[in-house]
Amino acid sequence: MKMVLNVQSRPSTLLSTRRACERRSKRPDFVRIVEVGPRDGLQNESELVPCSVKVELINRLAQAGLRSIEAGAFVSPRWVPQMADSSEVLRNVAQSENVSYSALVPNSKGMERALACGVSEVAVFASASETFSLKNINCSIEESFARFEHVLNMAKAHGVRVRGYLSCVTGCPYEGFVPPTKVAELARRLYDMGCDEISLGDTIGVGTPGSFSEMLEAVLDVVPVSVVAVHCHDTYGQALANILTAVDMGISVVDASVAGLGGCPYAKGSSGNVATEDVVYMLHGMGIRTGIDMQRLVDAGEFICKKLGKGSASKVARALRG
Amino acid sequence: MKMVLNVQSRPSTLLSTRRACERRSKRPDFVRIVEVGPRDGLQNESELVPCSVKVELINRLAQAGLRSIEAGAFVSPRWVPQMADSSEVLRNVAQSENVSYSALVPNSKGMERALACGVSEVAVFASASETFSLKNINCSIEESFARFEHVLNMAKAHGVRVRGYLSCVTGCPYEGFVPPTKVAELARRLYDMGCDEISLGDTIGVGTPGSFSEMLEAVLDVVPVSVVAVHCHDTYGQALANILTAVDMGISVVDASVAGLGGCPYAKGSSGNVATEDVVYMLHGMGIRTGIDMQRLVDAGEFICKKLGKGSASKVARALRG
Repeated sequence: MKMVLNVQSRPSTLLSTRRACERRSKRPDFVRIVEVGPRDGLQNESELVPCSVKVELINRLAQAGLRSIEAGAFVSPRWVPQMADSSEVLRNVAQSENVSYSALVPNSKGMERALACGVSEVAVFASASETFSLKNINCSIEESFARFEHVLNMAKAHGVRVRGYLSCVTGCPYEGFVPPTKVAELARRLYDMGCDEISLGDTIGVGTPGSFSEMLEAVLDVVPVSVVAVHCHDTYGQALANILTAVDMGISVVDASVAGLGGCPYAKGSSGNVATEDVVYMLHGMGIRTGIDMQRLVDAGEFICKKLGKGSASKVARALRG
Repeated sequence: MKMVLNVQSRPSTLLSTRRACERRSKRPDFVRIVEVGPRDGLQNESELVPCSVKVELINRLAQAGLRSIEAGAFVSPRWVPQMADSSEVLRNVAQSENVSYSALVPNSKGMERALACGVSEVAVFASASETFSLKNINCSIEESFARFEHVLNMAKAHGVRVRGYLSCVTGCPYEGFVPPTKVAELARRLYDMGCDEISLGDTIGVGTPGSFSEMLEAVLDVVPVSVVAVHCHDTYGQALANILTAVDMGISVVDASVAGLGGCPYAKGSSGNVATEDVVYMLHGMGIRTGIDMQRLVDAGEFICKKLGKGSASKVARALRG
């Protein structure tokens, strides 16, 4: 995949060192982790995970201190069979106080199902790459934004918080390089439409502290830093370095998946989502609070790995277990 | 290993943000990678690797653009049987111009053997942890420094460059937390004794951008940044984030091991040395030159992995191979 090498070899030249250093003094005291394991982590598992296992995973994550948990998706069961039981999962989780259990919704039909479960937060998804949008969600970027209008109107009418995912923010498996200006423009549109949070996804994990900071600089020029989250994949091993870059620029919301579950089926190599354990280890080591109990988090990861019959993709979990 | 968790949970409080930001503007344009795969990477392999394979690996690394390659060790073959053929390896590598082929030497006897091969660079090793020193190299820190005196005198007499390794710079498997002041004091002693370069090793990989920057701040207060190298292990997944931290503080020499070969047998979990491919991918993505050809580097890693019959520990190599 030569394209990816081309993405990578594009050096960071636009970023002003002065501005970067100004922003780097903005490291937050607290970072909120958005745990995506139960949805993004499990959705591509070929064997159906029982509802009870999903519920216990979510409950364990809440007990570990996670306050934002993506618990399911109201997409077509034909496309994502693993998420067919999201209503049942959301109805059965112990509704801990102060925990937001969210669900992915692609359209107004999905939104109706989410509202019926009483969710307080939903997530919509778009791509910064036209080709990825067409191949992944079967519609153009414009068409995806048109669908959001309905979802956002319904969400506002019911007081439901909306998170907007933007994928391919540093590179696309089909188009290669994705311009930071394109990402910034779409992030601004999601913000203007009423998204409460915008999660910038490095879907194929090709970003580095060079391209990632350049992209973030462009986004932070047009969207308040308080509504920006980063969603890093570790396909090229760059996830923690990119998260460090984001945090040093003042970003205080980071997506992660316990035990590094899941990933993007479109990305080459086996690594996907960055492991929550590894992110939390880094942040705690930097003196940044997360409210998460590492031992309980590692236990939650071990629980789901045993159920899936696979090893943890978290280096911290592996090191602590010896 | 609760001790390690204690090391990790110690937040970074000593580091002055202002000073850190001043140093962070010092990102270098060029980083020299010190390739440690042929020595540090192979030394713990239980099956003996033929001399011809080691020679071909070293030659391929030189062809990929690496200019500093640790090619062997003149230690007792009883302790490290894998390095018994270091003289033969060093005599057989294609002596590329501008490449420094170095060898580890524990004492004056090892130094004599190294000189007999005509090496232009040697490395000595000490630990920042008394217990690790006693258990790993069977002598106290003071005793190890006494041995260096002889080695350094011999090196100076023959115009040989000396690299000093310091291990356990952010934590020790026996003692837990290692104070940055201790690391700085020993780094300064190595510098004063005449070491041309001091490589700071996070032997068990417990460091984070918090503890790592605190340790580096202390060292850079007493040793010029131009002679400091970092040697990161990825046991807790923190290696690239720590290297990013070091580079942002002006450090321009980074140790790495092709395909992530090897590691420390004293560290829990399976991950050891950070993979050269992953470091180079990050640095190139940041617009920092290394002089290394990624494709040839990946090929060199694939060559040795095939010979060892194991998969690559480099995420970049795995992603590029698909």
